[in-house]
Amino acid sequence: MTSGIKKIVSVRNAHFGSKQFTIIAGPCSIESSEQFSQALQGVQTAGAHLMRGGIWKLRTSSDSFQGLGKEAFQFLREKLKNSDLGLVSEITDPRQIEATEDFLDIYQVGSRNMHNYALLQELGKTKKPILLKRGFAAHVDEWLKAADYIIKAGNENVILCERGIRTFETSTRNTLDLNSVVYVKSVSNYPVIVDPSHAVGIRALIPALAKASAAAGADGLIIEVHPNPEEALSDKEQALSIGEFTTLMNELKTLLPVLGRTL
Amino acid sequence: MTSGIKKIVSVRNAHFGSKQFTIIAGPCSIESSEQFSQALQGVQTAGAHLMRGGIWKLRTSSDSFQGLGKEAFQFLREKLKNSDLGLVSEITDPRQIEATEDFLDIYQVGSRNMHNYALLQELGKTKKPILLKRGFAAHVDEWLKAADYIIKAGNENVILCERGIRTFETSTRNTLDLNSVVYVKSVSNYPVIVDPSHAVGIRALIPALAKASAAAGADGLIIEVHPNPEEALSDKEQALSIGEFTTLMNELKTLLPVLGRTL
Amino acid sequence: MTSGIKKIVSVRNAHFGSKQFTIIAGPCSIESSEQFSQALQGVQTAGAHLMRGGIWKLRTSSDSFQGLGKEAFQFLREKLKNSDLGLVSEITDPRQIEATEDFLDIYQVGSRNMHNYALLQELGKTKKPILLKRGFAAHVDEWLKAADYIIKAGNENVILCERGIRTFETSTRNTLDLNSVVYVKSVSNYPVIVDPSHAVGIRALIPALAKASAAAGADGLIIEVHPNPEEALSDKEQALSIGEFTTLMNELKTLLPVLGRTL
Amino acid sequence: MTSGIKKIVSVRNAHFGSKQFTIIAGPCSIESSEQFSQALQGVQTAGAHLMRGGIWKLRTSSDSFQGLGKEAFQFLREKLKNSDLGLVSEITDPRQIEATEDFLDIYQVGSRNMHNYALLQELGKTKKPILLKRGFAAHVDEWLKAADYIIKAGNENVILCERGIRTFETSTRNTLDLNSVVYVKSVSNYPVIVDPSHAVGIRALIPALAKASAAAGADGLIIEVHPNPEEALSDKEQALSIGEFTTLMNELKTLLPVLGRTL
Repeated sequence: MTSGIKKIVSVRNAHFGSKQFTIIAGPCSIESSEQFSQALQGVQTAGAHLMRGGIWKLRTSSDSFQGLGKEAFQFLREKLKNSDLGLVSEITDPRQIEATEDFLDIYQVGSRNMHNYALLQELGKTKKPILLKRGFAAHVDEWLKAADYIIKAGNENVILCERGIRTFETSTRNTLDLNSVVYVKSVSNYPVIVDPSHAVGIRALIPALAKASAAAGADGLIIEVHPNPEEALSDKEQALSIGEFTTLMNELKTLLPVLGRTL
Repeated sequence: MTSGIKKIVSVRNAHFGSKQFTIIAGPCSIESSEQFSQALQGVQTAGAHLMRGGIWKLRTSSDSFQGLGKEAFQFLREKLKNSDLGLVSEITDPRQIEATEDFLDIYQVGSRNMHNYALLQELGKTKKPILLKRGFAAHVDEWLKAADYIIKAGNENVILCERGIRTFETSTRNTLDLNSVVYVKSVSNYPVIVDPSHAVGIRALIPALAKASAAAGADGLIIEVHPNPEEALSDKEQALSIGEFTTLMNELKTLLPVLGRTL
Repeated sequence: MTSGIKKIVSVRNAHFGSKQFTIIAGPCSIESSEQFSQALQGVQTAGAHLMRGGIWKLRTSSDSFQGLGKEAFQFLREKLKNSDLGLVSEITDPRQIEATEDFLDIYQVGSRNMHNYALLQELGKTKKPILLKRGFAAHVDEWLKAADYIIKAGNENVILCERGIRTFETSTRNTLDLNSVVYVKSVSNYPVIVDPSHAVGIRALIPALAKASAAAGADGLIIEVHPNPEEALSDKEQALSIGEFTTLMNELKTLLPVLGRTL
Repeated sequence: MTSGIKKIVSVRNAHFGSKQFTIIAGPCSIESSEQFSQALQGVQTAGAHLMRGGIWKLRTSSDSFQGLGKEAFQFLREKLKNSDLGLVSEITDPRQIEATEDFLDIYQVGSRNMHNYALLQELGKTKKPILLKRGFAAHVDEWLKAADYIIKAGNENVILCERGIRTFETSTRNTLDLNSVVYVKSVSNYPVIVDPSHAVGIRALIPALAKASAAAGADGLIIEVHPNPEEALSDKEQALSIGEFTTLMNELKTLLPVLGRTL
């Protein structure tokens, strides 16, 4: 795991772990065909490499919006066929893998499922890249061992994602742990990206932490962008508007060359 | 949820939430037919109301023993048929529910699956009692909302189980949170039991915390007991021998009447 | 530190670490001569061994009531002269030690000063018992090493006090860590008492946790009692009334003999 | 506190909160006249604005090196008289303030003393800048209220310093909380700097986190540099050599202009 050669995980125009600082952007939940189209066009124009969007949502309360589920399949297939961007989406049940195989480019494992080893093993049987979020209270060592479950099942295309940990501090949603990014990159070869949206949970603070992640040496970002944040059905406090995201991308374009990277 | 009438969840001779202080005891993992028989006989003689034992184990490392799985089904069916004690065991995948329906008395949801809402919803469609362990970093509110997932799916037989939380402290395996037991009992009607074995992780300290749990008002215990702790394939540092468990049961027999309860 | 002989720390009728379950009770802050008298009489009648009461208060906000300070000295001297109970009070500055020497029986080090080694060393030069609260985020090992500062300065009369730690959980004020009580008693000879008032911060939940502390093997309690909790100038949510405290003491009288202890 | 005008705290060539990214560097402990001279020359040549160095050390164990104390006064006075750099050092007892007034430029409050309000009030009576480290388990709100104690006592020259918080994660010494830096700058006008050395505790990881702090918008760094890290009497795992520090300063010189700042 500590050999000198970094693993690069590629899909379409995205190359996690390369000189590219890879950007996944899009809404927390896919809410409708129109919302998806607007988000897709917005993040593509701003320069994102991949789209994100939740089909099934793990929500603390059973009364909250749980995602469109299968209802979204048809329009996703259509719109993604004509798009340059691939879709990253969370799988919450092994039975969803086959159903989404033809239109998803990366399967995401959410923070609450990092310890769901049955799911990890099923994903390890696929060939697609797996975006493995750190459990919100997982030790770094447990995170790396969760990645082992995927790799031992046969799939080496693992991308790690730090998304904030649960601590005593309550002024922000979670505590972004950039120590873990720097540490994991020093002891393993995985690409590591950061989700500043969940890590801080406050829209105005996201761009500064996105840039901090780049300066720390992260390999990219997954970031929540919504065409109309105020009307988002989930996580609206932490979604950037397309305008705000575009501004951030421009700032990254200036910053990254100094760090030896490009967008 | 805060009405005055406490929910009592019953199965065989166990009545969680009643005056009975209900004891579930047995090994972390079911390792063999012999080990299971010895443990069953030992905990039954000592006065336990139910047996515990893991068939599938969620282990941090994919190299650790993962449980016997289906291999154990046949001898479990045979031995439980002739026993007064029912079996409590963890379900880690929705596909295990039907396969174990004829010989399990209580389905357990482990700490790492408390947020696995897909699993909770499947368990909510059954009629059996569900032992819902608190996530090791779950807020009390999230724990109660996880229980809602089961109840809304149609199953009201939920038993909560506090099993220690992850904190900065490392001298013990987790931090037993008896505040949460007392708090949950003040705001909800669920029976709440305690797992002192995982909460502290050090054999010699378990009996004192078991008694503390009773004095705090918990409705029972789930406790690791192994016929030969030194040779246990998992969690050997925290398994009581049958002799140690018998001593604890005798101490509880003296303590509980003062607290208005019985074994 | 791990020899078999437990240290007993005695002052007046209190014997910490003996068969006695030692009770310190009284208000968070000493607010007036009248309030002090009422509290003193109330807790004495209920059977407490020592009185507690803050003279100087460490408050998060500089706008909060900071204690009476020197203004209280005269009436404290008078009232304590005619009382069977001694007073336990927190020292927040080395310069307070000499000024209170003639009327305090135990110097308390508060949670926020556990790491204030300059203060610990000054207290180590006195002969009085020191009640050393655990820092709210201190590892058990750091707590024991803080005690060493006192002992190395010449004072072996150290009583440890667990008062809850800071964790991610917010439904209660802190998280009572009874693991630490059981653990410290297994590796050291210090008497260890519990402060359930700060540990949970919700009046109705304190008695259950006080009993749990006794069952866990703690050597006593320090507990907030106020003649009129609703009008307390600090910590009013967690002060027991004298009636509530008396009820708890009666419950302890029934419980303790079963645990091999007395009040 | 949230008015638009940022507070700038100046001393000698350092201007915290201005466009300058202000660097304080030097050893954890001042160990000898020679070590101090070497460190002073090294960090000055590399471009630091101020020197750091501990005179009295708060150590968890009373057996660890506690600092030179008064023994260092004479050589500090001599060497600082002929230096362009001022000295930042921690005060652990109110009685040290007057004794060091003539040769210290900034008084530092350490993490373990953030809640030592008696000390904060004494420092508030001085005119010198106060570097207020965040308590390792302090909520952001408590940190800001600790600053209020200094300000209300009459001293508005407060510089905040994030130095990592205590969480469940143990792969690094603490968890650097850059969320708090960004949050505090959005709700207050204080300059905020970062101590990456204590925040991560592993030498090789410090430069990446130093750059991340700059990108997040921090106003500077306090960083441990030792002429011979392997022989440091305290914190040797986290001290940069003068060569490593010089390399970091060169990297910052390239990075900062892109962020609108200078060294």
